[in-house]
Amino acid sequence: MLPLGLEYPTGILERLNANEVVIGDGGFVFALEKRGYVKAGPWTPEAAVTHPEAVRQLHREFLRAGSNVMQAFTFYASDDKLENRGQTLKITGAQVNEAACDLAREVANEGDALMAGGVCQTPSYLSCKSETEVKAIFKKQLDVFIKKNVDFLIAEYFEHVEEAEWAVQVLKMSGKPVAASMCIGPQGDMHGVPPGECAVRLVKAGAQIVGVNCHFDPLTCVEAVKMMKAAVEKAGLKAHYMVQPLAYHTPDCNCQGFIDLPEFPFALEPRILTRWDMHKYAREAYNAGIRFIGGCCGFEPYHIRAVAEELAPERGFLPQASDKHGLWGAALEMHTKPWVRARARRDYWENIHPASGRPKCPSLSSPEGWGVTKGHTELLQHREATTAQEMQHVLERQKKAKSAV
Amino acid sequence: MLPLGLEYPTGILERLNANEVVIGDGGFVFALEKRGYVKAGPWTPEAAVTHPEAVRQLHREFLRAGSNVMQAFTFYASDDKLENRGQTLKITGAQVNEAACDLAREVANEGDALMAGGVCQTPSYLSCKSETEVKAIFKKQLDVFIKKNVDFLIAEYFEHVEEAEWAVQVLKMSGKPVAASMCIGPQGDMHGVPPGECAVRLVKAGAQIVGVNCHFDPLTCVEAVKMMKAAVEKAGLKAHYMVQPLAYHTPDCNCQGFIDLPEFPFALEPRILTRWDMHKYAREAYNAGIRFIGGCCGFEPYHIRAVAEELAPERGFLPQASDKHGLWGAALEMHTKPWVRARARRDYWENIHPASGRPKCPSLSSPEGWGVTKGHTELLQHREATTAQEMQHVLERQKKAKSAV
Amino acid sequence: MLPLGLEYPTGILERLNANEVVIGDGGFVFALEKRGYVKAGPWTPEAAVTHPEAVRQLHREFLRAGSNVMQAFTFYASDDKLENRGQTLKITGAQVNEAACDLAREVANEGDALMAGGVCQTPSYLSCKSETEVKAIFKKQLDVFIKKNVDFLIAEYFEHVEEAEWAVQVLKMSGKPVAASMCIGPQGDMHGVPPGECAVRLVKAGAQIVGVNCHFDPLTCVEAVKMMKAAVEKAGLKAHYMVQPLAYHTPDCNCQGFIDLPEFPFALEPRILTRWDMHKYAREAYNAGIRFIGGCCGFEPYHIRAVAEELAPERGFLPQASDKHGLWGAALEMHTKPWVRARARRDYWENIHPASGRPKCPSLSSPEGWGVTKGHTELLQHREATTAQEMQHVLERQKKAKSAV
Amino acid sequence: MLPLGLEYPTGILERLNANEVVIGDGGFVFALEKRGYVKAGPWTPEAAVTHPEAVRQLHREFLRAGSNVMQAFTFYASDDKLENRGQTLKITGAQVNEAACDLAREVANEGDALMAGGVCQTPSYLSCKSETEVKAIFKKQLDVFIKKNVDFLIAEYFEHVEEAEWAVQVLKMSGKPVAASMCIGPQGDMHGVPPGECAVRLVKAGAQIVGVNCHFDPLTCVEAVKMMKAAVEKAGLKAHYMVQPLAYHTPDCNCQGFIDLPEFPFALEPRILTRWDMHKYAREAYNAGIRFIGGCCGFEPYHIRAVAEELAPERGFLPQASDKHGLWGAALEMHTKPWVRARARRDYWENIHPASGRPKCPSLSSPEGWGVTKGHTELLQHREATTAQEMQHVLERQKKAKSAV
Repeated sequence: MLPLGLEYPTGILERLNANEVVIGDGGFVFALEKRGYVKAGPWTPEAAVTHPEAVRQLHREFLRAGSNVMQAFTFYASDDKLENRGQTLKITGAQVNEAACDLAREVANEGDALMAGGVCQTPSYLSCKSETEVKAIFKKQLDVFIKKNVDFLIAEYFEHVEEAEWAVQVLKMSGKPVAASMCIGPQGDMHGVPPGECAVRLVKAGAQIVGVNCHFDPLTCVEAVKMMKAAVEKAGLKAHYMVQPLAYHTPDCNCQGFIDLPEFPFALEPRILTRWDMHKYAREAYNAGIRFIGGCCGFEPYHIRAVAEELAPERGFLPQASDKHGLWGAALEMHTKPWVRARARRDYWENIHPASGRPKCPSLSSPEGWGVTKGHTELLQHREATTAQEMQHVLERQKKAKSAV
Repeated sequence: MLPLGLEYPTGILERLNANEVVIGDGGFVFALEKRGYVKAGPWTPEAAVTHPEAVRQLHREFLRAGSNVMQAFTFYASDDKLENRGQTLKITGAQVNEAACDLAREVANEGDALMAGGVCQTPSYLSCKSETEVKAIFKKQLDVFIKKNVDFLIAEYFEHVEEAEWAVQVLKMSGKPVAASMCIGPQGDMHGVPPGECAVRLVKAGAQIVGVNCHFDPLTCVEAVKMMKAAVEKAGLKAHYMVQPLAYHTPDCNCQGFIDLPEFPFALEPRILTRWDMHKYAREAYNAGIRFIGGCCGFEPYHIRAVAEELAPERGFLPQASDKHGLWGAALEMHTKPWVRARARRDYWENIHPASGRPKCPSLSSPEGWGVTKGHTELLQHREATTAQEMQHVLERQKKAKSAV
Repeated sequence: MLPLGLEYPTGILERLNANEVVIGDGGFVFALEKRGYVKAGPWTPEAAVTHPEAVRQLHREFLRAGSNVMQAFTFYASDDKLENRGQTLKITGAQVNEAACDLAREVANEGDALMAGGVCQTPSYLSCKSETEVKAIFKKQLDVFIKKNVDFLIAEYFEHVEEAEWAVQVLKMSGKPVAASMCIGPQGDMHGVPPGECAVRLVKAGAQIVGVNCHFDPLTCVEAVKMMKAAVEKAGLKAHYMVQPLAYHTPDCNCQGFIDLPEFPFALEPRILTRWDMHKYAREAYNAGIRFIGGCCGFEPYHIRAVAEELAPERGFLPQASDKHGLWGAALEMHTKPWVRARARRDYWENIHPASGRPKCPSLSSPEGWGVTKGHTELLQHREATTAQEMQHVLERQKKAKSAV
Repeated sequence: MLPLGLEYPTGILERLNANEVVIGDGGFVFALEKRGYVKAGPWTPEAAVTHPEAVRQLHREFLRAGSNVMQAFTFYASDDKLENRGQTLKITGAQVNEAACDLAREVANEGDALMAGGVCQTPSYLSCKSETEVKAIFKKQLDVFIKKNVDFLIAEYFEHVEEAEWAVQVLKMSGKPVAASMCIGPQGDMHGVPPGECAVRLVKAGAQIVGVNCHFDPLTCVEAVKMMKAAVEKAGLKAHYMVQPLAYHTPDCNCQGFIDLPEFPFALEPRILTRWDMHKYAREAYNAGIRFIGGCCGFEPYHIRAVAEELAPERGFLPQASDKHGLWGAALEMHTKPWVRARARRDYWENIHPASGRPKCPSLSSPEGWGVTKGHTELLQHREATTAQEMQHVLERQKKAKSAV
């Protein structure tokens, strides 16, 4: 896979500065939930300790599929999360973070990939703990990442820009490149801060790469990153852009994304993107000027391979796993049935509108919290407040902030 | 996972005779295609040699999910298939079959599982080779299975009952238990032989277990096995029954099943069954008197886990991977959002009709070969002839058979 | 519209004996409900007395559209029905029947149409009244039809073949041609008597024309009439065949047809057939050997016109209303927008699959009485018993019948 | 129907000034096309002369349903349109307009309704004729309306605000109240002039009532009128508001509305609104401050009745046709089947999501002119240019306008 004359891995910023495409990986909690190693609900990553072979294998599959980034499997691996969530095993956050880093590094060394450590939103923030306390949580994970000498850092899956800023500020202390990615759509964060403003604040906080991940489908996420890019440029700032969306179609979500869908998290199957949907996504992201292009929940290795195959003309090479995939279905020419062989062509797959196979199921569902009297013209409008509980925390925090001044 | 006081593994027939439920695994070619190790089109299993860690990991996941059968990854591993299908690697059929057996045995030994070797339909039969030639192909694979001392044998994925009979006759030579499974639906095999007649012929040929696999969705396959059971009993014969269906909804298929769907094989995503669909399947299969219950293309480990969880009351234990799954979504009680926590209950998931998320896609598609003038009342009717090419082979074979008499 | 050299109207049997196509009209209660003259629920036809201009106008529209039969608007106009159903106006059954005959005759005389009087199922039968009582109800309506000298008689919309036989026996007393049409599908009448047996019994009772109307969509009804024809011919009998289906798609009905659909009767809109669906229907009916081809609930004049246009090659002329319709959309050539003009061709409309415009709505619904645990493979299976109430009546009747013997 | 103590008809402005609800009628060309009296394509109204009984009957049905406005059937009845569109009958525009006025007046006198004359967009404007020429066309129709003493005037179905202004300026010469209604959605007219700006210009041109009609579904039209109202009020002007939408769901339209849908005009059936959809529409329109509430293409009398029934609490009375309709399905209590009787309640119908009955049909279609590579996030975006032909006319007109200055 190593293109001739290149010695990899170059750093993330060197690559992006050179306008290279950096392909991310997929979401580990969803993929490993289906494989039997992560529990939906708490979504914690102790499998890095208990079943390293499963985590290593998934890294390898993404590497083969074309990923240039092995994100250590540290999602929700902060101590406060592990404590809160029924984690009865005697495994510490440090153990999880260290094991995850080792696995990611091991596989990254097998190909052209960087290794990244990441932090994400914390229960501490939501329960209204102080900036100091929340930052301490991030710092604990960062200590492991420094010890393990990650190539760069990612602050991802933040619903509130304030917490994301805090995360960036902590990660910046390491001197390593920092990417910041929020789980928001075009409507902005949970307090209604638009994507553009979020991006500007994150760049000002020190992130060299900004973008979005999770919660919405690929084209919606690309739309949000476009808004970020426009705002950053308008502010006279400079940044690189990343996008790591869901592999689920979410035309019917409100501002909290797929979490609000009644199908979340156990009946999302009909929404899974095909590999051909991924070709469209990769092209849209590239055309939008985004160069760090990956995936989140729902992405399987073949989805990442499709991204890599779509961008092969720009990158000059195919991913390793394409040795097991004919471009645009070409290998169907070897099928036994003549009418299947006839599908071995790009325009067939590019234009297919697959049937749902579920005649009693509608196309869209009504995310909870939408009134039944709402008309379809409001389909893309969004709830203006989160739950009462969250709102109360927000108000308390604001009160504190004011009294602090 | 080992129930107290039991020493496993008991043989397949002992288990079935004791009315135990034996849970199968999922289809390896589809699962490994998505992970980047099998090429769609030829669908050959050389990964057993080239990427044993990927095959081993998938076995382990199914074992954790509750599978009691580790099928060696030998699908389409006959020499004639490997030669015909762009197999440019210098790997022989024997190498593939041996490596596959070793991997299956290794993982079977890690839990309560039997190890099985399998043969499936051959290019030789379709190109009208003689009974002797076709049987020689099967014999070559059987030699490996005997050498590797498999626990039992499976003749599966046959579209023509005649070829399935030949396979059973060969496998019987080993003295090991033989299961025979055809890829047919309620309409019968490609020459219109009904499921019941197929089953009777296979039992007479020596199979102790008969059933269907692949090509149709779970409830359709259960329907076909019911027809088999009724006919076998009516003929005064005795057998056990197995079912290993697709994990795709296929209400709109004709007699060749999902291969005829325009979405095959690269746009089947919207049809993937949820885990809750699998609960219904497991219950229907059990109620129909089927005791060897597994899966085929599309099945991921979480699908098999759902089968095992549904039948836990009958079996008396949960699969190992249920340590990462709350029954009927119970672990959602640990989710951060209160409205997601509210989904932690059986009736929510049991009754959900998930939206497709694809407003431009219909519910059913028209399998190729169906005329546009056909009305919906003919939806479940079937093409009476396969392609011209296949029909010609059939006719030639019949002519030969007659002249032989 | 009168073809040169022909003097119309010839009698119904003369026409059918000559293998002519006789085009029926549409269902008046549904059409007039939408226009504001019939109340859904009781569905009684007093508008013939109170708003004759509305009834006359609808007759005229069907005549223009190509109908050769003006059915007097006497649906549910039996005295027992009018009394039972909140008929508070001081209008007698005789008045309604007479007014309806006069209106039908008036319009029939304006073109090439016969005038028919009809009876349908009665509350008396369902409440277990005697054969004598039920027949007396029919006789009362027949008296009016004889007085008004209808061209022929129709016993239609019967769910129980026994009651239909009684109706035919009464109508036969007039010496006029009698058609008998049941509101059943391929599953037969409410006691499970198959369509074929129903037809044989009705022919034996004296009906010269047999068929089905209402309750199911066109192609399903054609299917049921095919079964009738096969059975009548097998019995060595001779008859003509008629079909007057719904103008609603009903792929998801059980044996009582669209009445069981949750959308009945006020949300059936998405199921309305297009004119192009009607072309297919007319062709299927014609090919099945049916020559009396009309419609029931949901049919608007343009639906009947489509039937007449499809069969224009066989009949040799277009209906009058085709002066306001370009065949297969030809008049779109005069549209202002070029892309609409491009639709002025047969293959465009013949192959269109119209979108529902309702993303939150499924394709099929579950008729009430179907369990939620039923799988999709049972979609076309049917309830084996009607409601307890009806079943009780049936049992009582059977008891009486036995004791009578 | 006449409420006690009221002498009707009061003038349109008196009613609206008194905050009364004025209910409009439905679109005549679509309704009469289905009845066989209007040709789709040219859509011209010569039936007023050739089949007055059909036009009169439709007026009566809308009057019974609750309409307070009998719009003379003069749509596309300008001389230039009649000449251009295959109008081979020797009927002049004046004859059509006069006959239409007489019929509307005759029926208006039968109840509580005003009679209006209307003009709509002309071929002359689109073919780039001068303001003088276009105004002359309108003036010719206006002459008839003055002679027939219509109660007020409507300039409706304009895609270009400029032509609508010209129409208003002509109609104002009569001294009668003038309503102006454009066939646009929230995206504005064909040159991209937003609804708000259109409304302000029309009010400035002299219209006392402004709004939209046709081209989009009810909730989309209400949205556009809301934008008009906001802009008029912001401009410190005063007006009344009207809305007369389609009776078809159009979530998938671009700026030219349903004309662009591939189903237009012959396969729109699955999109037809139920009466319950109409209740929602009427309530939304009322809540938005709109008081002239009617319908356009697709509206049948029962749709208007639903509007009148929804607003009965505000108006104090039900329409006459409600004598044949139980509110919210109440008359189903008289149905023979107990499970249908159980549907005689508001919450059943208010919450129903009717199935399409068409498993092979998608929910949305792609209006022509949308690229296949467009993602779903652009679903509500709109074509920025009309066809090349139209654009050329626009440019020519602009050039002329400049050279005139």
